[in-house]
Amino acid sequence: MSEARQKAAAAKKASRILAQATDAQRRQAIRAAAKRIEDSSAEVLEANAKDVANGRASHMADPLMDRLLLTDERLKALVASMFEIADQPDPLGKVLDGRTLAAGVRMEKISVPLGVVAIIYEARPNVTADAFSLCLRSGNSCVLKGGSAAKSSCQAIVRLCRAGLEDAGLPRDCVTYIDSTDHAETAELMRATGLVDVLIPRGSARLIKATVEQATVPTIETGTGNCHIYLHTSADSHMATDIVVNAKTQRPGVCNAAESLLVDTAAAQRLLPPVASALVDRGVELVGDDDARRICKENGMPMGEATEEDWGKEYLDLKMSVKCVSGVQEAIAHINRYGTGHSEAIVCTDYAASEAFLAGVDAAAVYVNASTRFTDGGVFGLGGEIGISTQKLHARGPMGADALTTTKYVLRGDGQVRK
Amino acid sequence: MSEARQKAAAAKKASRILAQATDAQRRQAIRAAAKRIEDSSAEVLEANAKDVANGRASHMADPLMDRLLLTDERLKALVASMFEIADQPDPLGKVLDGRTLAAGVRMEKISVPLGVVAIIYEARPNVTADAFSLCLRSGNSCVLKGGSAAKSSCQAIVRLCRAGLEDAGLPRDCVTYIDSTDHAETAELMRATGLVDVLIPRGSARLIKATVEQATVPTIETGTGNCHIYLHTSADSHMATDIVVNAKTQRPGVCNAAESLLVDTAAAQRLLPPVASALVDRGVELVGDDDARRICKENGMPMGEATEEDWGKEYLDLKMSVKCVSGVQEAIAHINRYGTGHSEAIVCTDYAASEAFLAGVDAAAVYVNASTRFTDGGVFGLGGEIGISTQKLHARGPMGADALTTTKYVLRGDGQVRK
Repeated sequence: MSEARQKAAAAKKASRILAQATDAQRRQAIRAAAKRIEDSSAEVLEANAKDVANGRASHMADPLMDRLLLTDERLKALVASMFEIADQPDPLGKVLDGRTLAAGVRMEKISVPLGVVAIIYEARPNVTADAFSLCLRSGNSCVLKGGSAAKSSCQAIVRLCRAGLEDAGLPRDCVTYIDSTDHAETAELMRATGLVDVLIPRGSARLIKATVEQATVPTIETGTGNCHIYLHTSADSHMATDIVVNAKTQRPGVCNAAESLLVDTAAAQRLLPPVASALVDRGVELVGDDDARRICKENGMPMGEATEEDWGKEYLDLKMSVKCVSGVQEAIAHINRYGTGHSEAIVCTDYAASEAFLAGVDAAAVYVNASTRFTDGGVFGLGGEIGISTQKLHARGPMGADALTTTKYVLRGDGQVRK
Repeated sequence: MSEARQKAAAAKKASRILAQATDAQRRQAIRAAAKRIEDSSAEVLEANAKDVANGRASHMADPLMDRLLLTDERLKALVASMFEIADQPDPLGKVLDGRTLAAGVRMEKISVPLGVVAIIYEARPNVTADAFSLCLRSGNSCVLKGGSAAKSSCQAIVRLCRAGLEDAGLPRDCVTYIDSTDHAETAELMRATGLVDVLIPRGSARLIKATVEQATVPTIETGTGNCHIYLHTSADSHMATDIVVNAKTQRPGVCNAAESLLVDTAAAQRLLPPVASALVDRGVELVGDDDARRICKENGMPMGEATEEDWGKEYLDLKMSVKCVSGVQEAIAHINRYGTGHSEAIVCTDYAASEAFLAGVDAAAVYVNASTRFTDGGVFGLGGEIGISTQKLHARGPMGADALTTTKYVLRGDGQVRK
């Protein structure tokens, strides 16, 4: 049997016991794991130093190195986040609906765990602790497969989480980690029907696409964000500048950063020069359509030509495409065509434009007069996130512990049969 | 472009307009379609007669012929069901959650349509009208692909639904039908990423398995039901007999019919003979494990041997497997291993056994002292169903109009940016 199936089967078995654990036990296990990590921080940092050294030796890119690196401070934040998740209200056992059927059978619809959640992610050690905590909070076992570059760090964290589970009297296999870095194991995990109840890929667009293509287990697409900021004719130019600069440059490598700017042609002479100049000052490369290029050129800012490919591109870098549109309807149509359904924003003072945009744009999060950078489980009050769903099935937008539950109909009768 | 992609693209385009339609318009369109079918019942019955004649000529099996056949009475019921769905409360625009973020941005989580729902089904004309009505009630366009044996009937119904849409001022392409019976078109539909928001296969286990294997669009597994009735030591033998007979024989070809009987060994001498004899009287073939066979043989009812395959089998016929178990924990473990997560029941008078069963069994619907045959969208008060989900993602159990919605976060600010 492959390691993936073996680890998934062990997690499945443990999930049956975990599903019966009390709220207090599940909280206790997360706290015990956090305590173990806190007490063994030297061990975790040492494991991480090994990964970092390997990363350096293999010339890993800086942003990836930054995501891989654990510091004392980052580890403290990781532990604090685990305690926070433990403190969240129980997502299980909620009675979501209920009635008495015509035959007199009493029905309730109750929130229950999914069972086994598999997560494939990149070289980010902190995802290990987050995923474990959110899964356990919602009564789920998890099977983790982290990026090979973070193997030592992830293994150290998983070892301590497993010890924490044991401290709380729960099976260690409530979290399992696939040690093999063989791609065949990833494929096995994607096809472990009956063992994996949901698979969440977290990482590059390529990983997510491969998962959607190959997986036979239910999957939640996450993360790809081709986000737009649309400046309506009525927009205030200072607010427009602040929001576009924040959405593009505050952290360009993340999925809720903006990638494309739409401007009403009628107000482009007023709005585009100050916004473009602020972006260029911060080192952003702009590419645009003919109207945008002409206006920027007249204002002394030459701009490259945007190709069809640019409209659909998630740069994750200091680059942005710019397009002039005829109004809110064209902006909506463009976003619905090229967007990835993540986060989209309008800047305006006109009420009708704001309402049309909110209703017409088909995305997980739609903003009026605020930066797309707010789309985040922590910011949304979900106490962390296991990913940001860009699909419509099951969960959309940031997914907290609630998104890791399903429902069960419970029916109590006195011998009723169907006529 | 394939017909599937063409029809899905047309439905997608229409879905943008439909998403903006009012509750009144969506109700009106369903009613207008129902009225059109009512007024043109002769036309529908004539189209159906053609399908039935073809079915007879090709020696279609009786149960399939019965599902294909429309009568005046059945058409009346179909129309009545459409009016009922139109009368249901609006599943859209519900504010499901909301708060003000720390930065002062006001957030709401709102129910919105999925977009385009694709349904692949068998030769059942009534599914056409049900699917159209439930999709439209929830603001979704639908792409339908019915079984080739019901082609004329489905086309006639779709034609009238499209006329109803036009009567209500909505685009006809809110429902499209794939006329081609080529299997390649089915495959195209399963891979129409970006055009189909969710695919629901309704039909045989084979169709559902093929869909899960091949589809790259998000899919909801439906229908397969290997349902169990477990008789606890404390069960009343009359109630046990009533429930088992109802669950097995009232309509053996449907997914919520029972396929397997579990009996506590300690009470098998008391419970098994009356239950088995009632089943045999109704023509049910029983296969069992050694204990069950011995007890039945002692009581003059010889029984075939159940193989490993029998425990996992959905007979959809007058056949049932029988197994003796050591108690509620073994019953739960057996069900969680061999069941399909559809509907499961315990018969008992013992409180602790009932609670252990409800908590331990991992299925969409779990019953105490009632027949599994109650699992149905209509019976559960959902006003019809588009299928019964046996997966845990998105929806579990009977799916009504609510299950065809997703959510959108709407956020209103005054220029907030992320620090």
